[in-house]
Amino acid sequence: MPRTSNRIEQLQGLMKAQHIDLLALGPGAQMQWLLGFHPHADERPCLACISQTRAAFLMPALNAAGSREATNLNFFEWSDAEGPQVAFTDLLTDLNVTNARQIALDETMRADFAALVQDALPAAKRQFTASSIGHLRMRKDESEFTLLKANALIADAAMMAGWDAMKVGMSELEVAEIIRKKFIDLDTKPLFTIVGAGLNGAYPHHQTGETILKAGDAVVMDIGGGKSSYSSDITRIAVLGEAPDGYHEVQAIVEAAVQAAMLAARPGVKAHVVDDAARKVITDAGYGQYFVHRTGHGMGVEIHEQPYLTSVLQTVLETGMVFSIEPGIYLPGRFGIRLEDIVILRADGPEILSDLPRD
Amino acid sequence: MPRTSNRIEQLQGLMKAQHIDLLALGPGAQMQWLLGFHPHADERPCLACISQTRAAFLMPALNAAGSREATNLNFFEWSDAEGPQVAFTDLLTDLNVTNARQIALDETMRADFAALVQDALPAAKRQFTASSIGHLRMRKDESEFTLLKANALIADAAMMAGWDAMKVGMSELEVAEIIRKKFIDLDTKPLFTIVGAGLNGAYPHHQTGETILKAGDAVVMDIGGGKSSYSSDITRIAVLGEAPDGYHEVQAIVEAAVQAAMLAARPGVKAHVVDDAARKVITDAGYGQYFVHRTGHGMGVEIHEQPYLTSVLQTVLETGMVFSIEPGIYLPGRFGIRLEDIVILRADGPEILSDLPRD
Repeated sequence: MPRTSNRIEQLQGLMKAQHIDLLALGPGAQMQWLLGFHPHADERPCLACISQTRAAFLMPALNAAGSREATNLNFFEWSDAEGPQVAFTDLLTDLNVTNARQIALDETMRADFAALVQDALPAAKRQFTASSIGHLRMRKDESEFTLLKANALIADAAMMAGWDAMKVGMSELEVAEIIRKKFIDLDTKPLFTIVGAGLNGAYPHHQTGETILKAGDAVVMDIGGGKSSYSSDITRIAVLGEAPDGYHEVQAIVEAAVQAAMLAARPGVKAHVVDDAARKVITDAGYGQYFVHRTGHGMGVEIHEQPYLTSVLQTVLETGMVFSIEPGIYLPGRFGIRLEDIVILRADGPEILSDLPRD
Repeated sequence: MPRTSNRIEQLQGLMKAQHIDLLALGPGAQMQWLLGFHPHADERPCLACISQTRAAFLMPALNAAGSREATNLNFFEWSDAEGPQVAFTDLLTDLNVTNARQIALDETMRADFAALVQDALPAAKRQFTASSIGHLRMRKDESEFTLLKANALIADAAMMAGWDAMKVGMSELEVAEIIRKKFIDLDTKPLFTIVGAGLNGAYPHHQTGETILKAGDAVVMDIGGGKSSYSSDITRIAVLGEAPDGYHEVQAIVEAAVQAAMLAARPGVKAHVVDDAARKVITDAGYGQYFVHRTGHGMGVEIHEQPYLTSVLQTVLETGMVFSIEPGIYLPGRFGIRLEDIVILRADGPEILSDLPRD
């Protein structure tokens, strides 16, 4: 696990600079990143609350003993009978933020958790964590690279397991189950296993189902797992027998788009420049309308995090950022092709984490 | 799958009665319950929006084609480049709710999704869905009972698999993996598999880990899976060899608390009366301070939903409600015992879904 001990300090430095009085996180990836753990997540409000100088937990009583083993932060406990209001007021008083003017909320936490904070501080302006925790999370260190590389190689193995087992007559779900099993065998939690056969490949977020694989299908596999709190995410295409009409042409265009994006991704470049590069290849080839999503997204403790590579985002890419490059072309009624690699941005360009060739 | 076609109508009836102008749901259990499906969930705002007379989706463009197969609702699509703002404004105009005064938000959805709605309707009062969708979800029908019973029997089989395989020298995670595998073999998604051995059993939400099972351990297993969009949840205790000191006494108290709660749970009774009954048994036996959580929670498309059985809740129980009864006693440094069954409340009392005896 990466050391998290100095992350609170780094965060509080940013909070001072940005005049954020209080930052609140629910039990999830953000808390995991900041504190190295998170308590059980359910409907009971559980918040890590960070002020510019202190930090404490709003903690459901039944999770207190278990969480005490993982953190030294002060707990403000509440029982099912009492509810969280009194404990939360005590926490705000203890952190000296009852007059907070700027609060930053974990965008991924439950809406009712966010409401608890906002209702207690009605005069505060609300922002989310993109410029604070998001800013820090984007800039990854060696220990994180190591975990991401390990996750990528596990995803490679899971992809190969699906590939090796796949044959005409199997269902998408059967292939997905083989991939899931490989993740599990490698001590990794399967996070998503999209298998889209034939026409289904034209839906970028196809819900893997009972569709049977046929000869001539292009099968999109977009899979990811999680180990040691970090993630993997990779997309490859398998073709069963002879490729469908036009497949090779479209495949070559998507591959060219990947390579254009890889060339464009350099430290100091804005995120949209990478999207522009991939999109130009696909648009120039006449398929612009079929590239219906951004070129990529950051990855780390979450599968999708900053930086996002869209046609408009002005985020300046820096060495140490980790993101996907994954252009695609989706032809309704025919097939879809997306090729995705996760890269670490190095001084001289992207380092691809997967060892699997894209073809 | 239960028919969902009349649920929107029922919901709109409640919205009219309660003067809720707009209800918004994220992709999750609530949307699944209302519409019978939900699109892929990620950081892209995706909302099912219900007015008193109409309904529509705010839909990320890349999920549109796939979702079109599952619903006839109108889509207001947005691309990664455009962002959701314009499409959401168009949706509010189309639903004629730009002057909404009361909005109900899915409490489980991401905080940034909720903010999108609230920022677009700054004059509206916000509530969550407890009195609208929550009210409807509590009152389950025969098709839901059937799915919940099927899920309960699968959980029984998974519990037995863990029980049969468990032996001294295995780790909690190994036992959990066997339980997970059984769920998967039965075409069911494992949702949680808490295995707490010995001292760990004293943490109600113990994070299953590398602890090795020893002779004389009481092992708490709290597991649940999901099939056909419904859930299971059951807790049993296995004792490896000779029980720890005091185990049989405490086990008998918890069992008596379960039975007291079962006797108290009748249509027309308030939720807290059930909690009171279980808590009285445990308190009278001198263990009140070690029963650190509520007696139960509703269950359906979510593992935890209304009605909650706490010491304060005034919800009146009705026939057809489905909830857990799960008192526990947690003795730090010694062991923990929780016994949990899911019941359907019938006219003459609770019907237990599991076929496994509690001892």
